[in-house]
Amino acid sequence: MSGSAEPGRGLRRAIATVCLSGTLEDKLAAAASAGFDGVEVFEPDLVASPWAPSELAARCADLGLSIDLYQPFRDLDSTDPDRFARNLRRAERKFDVMAGLGVDTVLVCSSVAEDAVDDPDHLAGQLAATAARAGERGLRIAYEALAWGTHVSTWERSWDAVRRADSPALGLCLDSFHVLSRGGDPAGFAQVPAEKLFFLQLADAPRLRMDVLQWSRHHRLFPGQGAFDLPAFLGAVLAAGYTGPLSLEVFNDVYRQSDPVRTAIDAMRSLRWLEEALALRSPGAGLPTPPSAPELTGWSFTELAVDGVSGPRAADVLTTLGFTHTGQHRSKPVQLWEQGAARVLLNGSVVRPAAAGVAAVAALGLESAEPGRSAERAEAMCAPVLPRTRGAAEAELSAVAAPDGTEVFFTRTGPDGWPADFLATGEQAGPGAGITGLDHVGLSQPFDAFDEAGLFYRAVLGLEPQEVTELAAPFGLVRTRAVTGPHRAVRLALSAATLRRGGWAPGVPEPQYVAFATDDVVAAARALRAAGAALLPVPANYADDLEARLDLPADLLAAVREHGLLYEEDAAGGYLHLVTEVLGGRVFFEVVQRIGGYDGYGTADAPVRMAAHRRLRQAAPR
Amino acid sequence: MSGSAEPGRGLRRAIATVCLSGTLEDKLAAAASAGFDGVEVFEPDLVASPWAPSELAARCADLGLSIDLYQPFRDLDSTDPDRFARNLRRAERKFDVMAGLGVDTVLVCSSVAEDAVDDPDHLAGQLAATAARAGERGLRIAYEALAWGTHVSTWERSWDAVRRADSPALGLCLDSFHVLSRGGDPAGFAQVPAEKLFFLQLADAPRLRMDVLQWSRHHRLFPGQGAFDLPAFLGAVLAAGYTGPLSLEVFNDVYRQSDPVRTAIDAMRSLRWLEEALALRSPGAGLPTPPSAPELTGWSFTELAVDGVSGPRAADVLTTLGFTHTGQHRSKPVQLWEQGAARVLLNGSVVRPAAAGVAAVAALGLESAEPGRSAERAEAMCAPVLPRTRGAAEAELSAVAAPDGTEVFFTRTGPDGWPADFLATGEQAGPGAGITGLDHVGLSQPFDAFDEAGLFYRAVLGLEPQEVTELAAPFGLVRTRAVTGPHRAVRLALSAATLRRGGWAPGVPEPQYVAFATDDVVAAARALRAAGAALLPVPANYADDLEARLDLPADLLAAVREHGLLYEEDAAGGYLHLVTEVLGGRVFFEVVQRIGGYDGYGTADAPVRMAAHRRLRQAAPR
Repeated sequence: MSGSAEPGRGLRRAIATVCLSGTLEDKLAAAASAGFDGVEVFEPDLVASPWAPSELAARCADLGLSIDLYQPFRDLDSTDPDRFARNLRRAERKFDVMAGLGVDTVLVCSSVAEDAVDDPDHLAGQLAATAARAGERGLRIAYEALAWGTHVSTWERSWDAVRRADSPALGLCLDSFHVLSRGGDPAGFAQVPAEKLFFLQLADAPRLRMDVLQWSRHHRLFPGQGAFDLPAFLGAVLAAGYTGPLSLEVFNDVYRQSDPVRTAIDAMRSLRWLEEALALRSPGAGLPTPPSAPELTGWSFTELAVDGVSGPRAADVLTTLGFTHTGQHRSKPVQLWEQGAARVLLNGSVVRPAAAGVAAVAALGLESAEPGRSAERAEAMCAPVLPRTRGAAEAELSAVAAPDGTEVFFTRTGPDGWPADFLATGEQAGPGAGITGLDHVGLSQPFDAFDEAGLFYRAVLGLEPQEVTELAAPFGLVRTRAVTGPHRAVRLALSAATLRRGGWAPGVPEPQYVAFATDDVVAAARALRAAGAALLPVPANYADDLEARLDLPADLLAAVREHGLLYEEDAAGGYLHLVTEVLGGRVFFEVVQRIGGYDGYGTADAPVRMAAHRRLRQAAPR
Repeated sequence: MSGSAEPGRGLRRAIATVCLSGTLEDKLAAAASAGFDGVEVFEPDLVASPWAPSELAARCADLGLSIDLYQPFRDLDSTDPDRFARNLRRAERKFDVMAGLGVDTVLVCSSVAEDAVDDPDHLAGQLAATAARAGERGLRIAYEALAWGTHVSTWERSWDAVRRADSPALGLCLDSFHVLSRGGDPAGFAQVPAEKLFFLQLADAPRLRMDVLQWSRHHRLFPGQGAFDLPAFLGAVLAAGYTGPLSLEVFNDVYRQSDPVRTAIDAMRSLRWLEEALALRSPGAGLPTPPSAPELTGWSFTELAVDGVSGPRAADVLTTLGFTHTGQHRSKPVQLWEQGAARVLLNGSVVRPAAAGVAAVAALGLESAEPGRSAERAEAMCAPVLPRTRGAAEAELSAVAAPDGTEVFFTRTGPDGWPADFLATGEQAGPGAGITGLDHVGLSQPFDAFDEAGLFYRAVLGLEPQEVTELAAPFGLVRTRAVTGPHRAVRLALSAATLRRGGWAPGVPEPQYVAFATDDVVAAARALRAAGAALLPVPANYADDLEARLDLPADLLAAVREHGLLYEEDAAGGYLHLVTEVLGGRVFFEVVQRIGGYDGYGTADAPVRMAAHRRLRQAAPR
């Protein structure tokens, strides 16, 4: 019944029902399917449920879920004695509910009412009186400071009240959002006796400049998805002796309307990531540890799904980009195209729910020193591992599905690696266009999956999420976030609409792209034009604006105008890139040159690119 | 070329291209189709356009649009002389663009950079130097204080700089958002000489507690959609002698991704509303005035579109609710059902793109003293007027389409009004269920149309939008807003998802409902149950929670439990209501009793209702 750790086991994992979309039935099924040990029952979910509390308890037991907390009880204390008496009576009715649920702990939030008690001893007295009623029934109260409480808005003030009340049935609930959103210091938890740490709620959040209540109610994230240092927070709580469940309480507008099964898996991944981050910092915390992520040292290949129409078109485009068809798969209709260290697979056997004639990024091949261990870790981090059939003389390939459905292969490029699956075509490579390798892949994410994807690549692959940026694109706002490996050997540029698009939004979904690296984009542009590559026309207004804004050398500006290049700068360097037309409605290519230490993805130019692609779509025959 | 008013005409109407979704081509076409006189060209739209400035000017001329402003020029002034010299050079390049466009005014925003100039005379000197360059080319600079400018963040400081600079080519741009978001007082505009009021940008906004930059960039609204007093603002600007265009500049995440033609019409409606509001306050402003809105004195009827499956089911439900089939349309398959003053039409001839077997609210009949004038006004307020065919001996009906497609009829209930279309069936009314009339209709709005709808009902029908509230519903957040007529004779409860729903969101679109009024909902519940009405089962947990929260009389609580009633309170009274099952997937009925001065719509209970409806859907045979 209680949420304490059992000897020999790690800490238990719980999730508040408010994190998940649907009715209580939907939420419990999702939490159980993701492997949670317990739930916090959010009162409005119970109120809307046809199950009596005891029926809910039975349902949870059937699903293998404990009920670890009933929450929230609001605005308990009052300077008005009659109001406090009514609040006590209200508490008694909720204690009845708890008895039915078989839960022993209720969350009491600090009051946000005008009549909230400010005087510390007066407040402690009301808390103690309520705790006494709870204690008589074998229940206990976890008191939490809301960041916007009328008088109690810091965990220190909530602890002061609990300490003064000095009641065995009264302790603290610590919530990472309420502490960290106000810049609170978890180091102080050490002063709290372990037996007073009744409950722990975990949530991350992006750094936003907004009212803290709105921030809390709409924009919380699961640990590892936001900007808070959750490992340090949890480390401090565990160091203070907390042994209850690690419980997620995330109010998020997107998760409130997304498939709860998917959200629950995302939530479980966030706890596994947090547990691992913590184990690294404080070994011996007793938490299970997945194998560490083998470093991803580069790109093996990018695979495009093609059909009988888009396949030959993709081959034509790759030819004009200077690629050579060097290999053919032993058993499948898959072509290998190469230039420098850039490798593209055209796969005619991938079943995709896309329209005929469309090409799409189907898979990423990432170099892993230990592909097997990469896959083992991915599975421990709740990634769906994909079944693979292996032909004679074919290398074993381990792959997982990313949130947008892209397959991620853990591979080795070598005689015993994935190239063993391919027979040489014997085609001679031409002069090429100076492409040296693959710089990054740009993947537009489903609206619901943007934050999930950041955590997926972080926890499963060990990539590091970068800042979220936002751009005003022609058909709506777009968020972008890169995830990168050590030494930037692997870069992915993720993007998603800020609001889910409706009927008016030409070009949805936004295209994916593959960006090839070069050391001389101007030479590459000449070679591509000579080969007849279908490059995107960039407006002259764009170059005029560049000239007005930046002190560019005359020859660079002339090259920008002549070849339709795009150019951006950051503090460390510059970025020249050119863009092709969209192939079969979904994928385009870029050739990019990084100058100095430029670390971005040409995002600021994306609106110009989108408008130009839109014009080509409009001009194209239907 | 300039935006000044022409003698004998009203002020000109303009819109910034940034208000609208799409490429510049899309935006201009939309602005022209909605009847705007001019546009502000937002620089990023031009940069992404393939048209040279002179080509854009020709395109605008073809569409009958003037270019009234080029914007924005950012971060002009600098404490670093080299930086300022570069900024001046940048300005010269933009003056070249303006020459091509044939526009004489550029918007210069106050700097948000760290190197912005604080010293008033230093700042005035840099503005004067830039204005001198502009003046030499026949151009002028409208200087605007951004609400988050480094040093210049109020209109008073921008005016101080312009006054000190004392340059004929330098004047003010006043922006209602920047002034009103900071609580600025438009009364001070009177001190500014009229010739220094170069430009005016209008935007409304909801009251939000958030960072002002984010508020401005994401949540602006068209006048009449938000909480600012735009009529007072514009009145002060006009009183100070401004004669330039009324130009809308609205940064809004939804409008950035919605059909620009529709947004432009919404924008035009907002200006017409504003012009009318102003004419009422300051007659003689020279603005055209649509006929005033005749008061809507009540409900004539609500019409449901039905088919061969849902029609008989709707008739059954109405029968169990105590209605009688009293009339049959002379020429169409339309039934009239009545109880008290509540009238429902079941129309089998409405073509709707809904699935077979579905019933939906198709039309609202509203009592107007002058239906013809109501329609005339609606047309002047940019509402689409619907064509009507009129049979022999049938009343003429004027109707317009609301943003969600619902038809709104302006009618009179009397011998010469709409009832003349119906022949009596001769059916005898039974005892009924105590329904006295129609309280309100609940209409779920398309995601993109929520703010548009508020303004539509305000401007077209003269209803008053109430506060927007938000509720955490089982499948995502929902916003609601009522629009009400004088004496609450007409009430509509509008709702929409806060985020557009995706694949997981059972029950989308949310149902519509028709709420009938009664003076005794308990008696009504008894009658309905006796008649076999299919009422929604309300969980016992709901009544338990009511008992814990409120001091309800025992008999009331017993009735709530016995009949599955829902109960809410506001400061003025209480609200008892009961809900039926959903008819054919889209429409349900409520019977509601207002006690005291309760002025709400039972919104807080909506999550309980939604969860219960969801369970019925799950239980229903497929």
